[in-house]
Amino acid sequence: MATLYHFPLCPHSRFVRLAIAESGVHPDYAEERAWERRREFLMLNPAGTTPVFALDDGLVAVGAGPISEYLDEQRGAELEDERMLPVDPRGRLEVRRLVDWFNQKFFDEVSGPLAMEKGYKRYMRNEDGGGPPDTVVIRAAKANIRYHMKYIGWLSATRNGLAGDRITYADLAAAAHLSVVDYFGDVPWDEDEAARAWYARVKSRPSFRALLADRMPGMAPSAHYEDLDF
Amino acid sequence: MATLYHFPLCPHSRFVRLAIAESGVHPDYAEERAWERRREFLMLNPAGTTPVFALDDGLVAVGAGPISEYLDEQRGAELEDERMLPVDPRGRLEVRRLVDWFNQKFFDEVSGPLAMEKGYKRYMRNEDGGGPPDTVVIRAAKANIRYHMKYIGWLSATRNGLAGDRITYADLAAAAHLSVVDYFGDVPWDEDEAARAWYARVKSRPSFRALLADRMPGMAPSAHYEDLDF
Repeated sequence: MATLYHFPLCPHSRFVRLAIAESGVHPDYAEERAWERRREFLMLNPAGTTPVFALDDGLVAVGAGPISEYLDEQRGAELEDERMLPVDPRGRLEVRRLVDWFNQKFFDEVSGPLAMEKGYKRYMRNEDGGGPPDTVVIRAAKANIRYHMKYIGWLSATRNGLAGDRITYADLAAAAHLSVVDYFGDVPWDEDEAARAWYARVKSRPSFRALLADRMPGMAPSAHYEDLDF
Repeated sequence: MATLYHFPLCPHSRFVRLAIAESGVHPDYAEERAWERRREFLMLNPAGTTPVFALDDGLVAVGAGPISEYLDEQRGAELEDERMLPVDPRGRLEVRRLVDWFNQKFFDEVSGPLAMEKGYKRYMRNEDGGGPPDTVVIRAAKANIRYHMKYIGWLSATRNGLAGDRITYADLAAAAHLSVVDYFGDVPWDEDEAARAWYARVKSRPSFRALLADRMPGMAPSAHYEDLDF
């Protein structure tokens, strides 16, 4: 049985959970607290990061990019119109550009710092970097998110999906990262109406249900986190 | 004519220059000082980062990952044994894992900070973040590189390439990032003999020549930078 090692507040894990669900794959899910640097986990991924997808046949797919490319290569063709990575060169370039935008840039500027300060640090021991949140870092991330909301709004104002007419990995990546920020209640939904409408569409997909059911110990999500009509 | 927008000290640009040369493509090369946020460049890539590959037919490939995937999709098949992304699932997973290791982890921990502190800051205006190098950041990067050298040594001790028997994108990514650090003379080559021998092999490929010819204004490379027998 294939197993996805993930953490509920890890935005890259969430992206991969969406990609897996959209691909019609049904692995086991194992929560991994990567900062504990569990030996068996480090043997799967020496970088010590989530997500890691351990496959049936002994293959190990490490990281959001390689896992999503693997899923498309293995399952994409049979998904036809629901394929998350288009087959035309222009579509592929645009989807991969936006996946990197969210998995790298948005993560560095917004979802990574917020997940660390408001989430991970609660569960980490002090000697591993745990402790109270750094309010300066939180303030910077909450300032940074505003131009990303405008960009999402601009992209989605005239299109069904961020990268074009269809929902693709670009939408899954963007929504995965936003969903972590939304758990903390830090998405300024009033900032852009088109961005909100786009997120409502992605959030209502069946693949999103598991994410909306996530509950972190001792930390309730924002009031509207699960609400499809927020 | 296709144009690659790059910067000589940008490790991701160097990876793509190697990938382009190995693919037998011959674009124009345009040096881009991304921090100047030139309007025409931002229209190609709103993230404002190098590399950007503007293609003949109006397509724009943004970033190391999307560009290298595009090159493989367009040119890989005819490269046959010289293909930089293997065709078997296991090979693809391992190459992409290691490309991410260097383009993300090594960049965050080593080549990014060193390129910024020792390189970019010389050319940036003070109001854009220029100024003298931060010695604390440099010291941390020079400490971080040591375990990466051991990892490269461990991977290359029993294989021809980092990801397996052949040279792949994994080798190009690793060598591209190391070459920037080597320009500054900050690679501890004594640390691992297998890593040194591996780098000497990659460095002697024709695709590497243009990188070894790079010269930054007012900043000579380390004495052995160009030496194939260092």
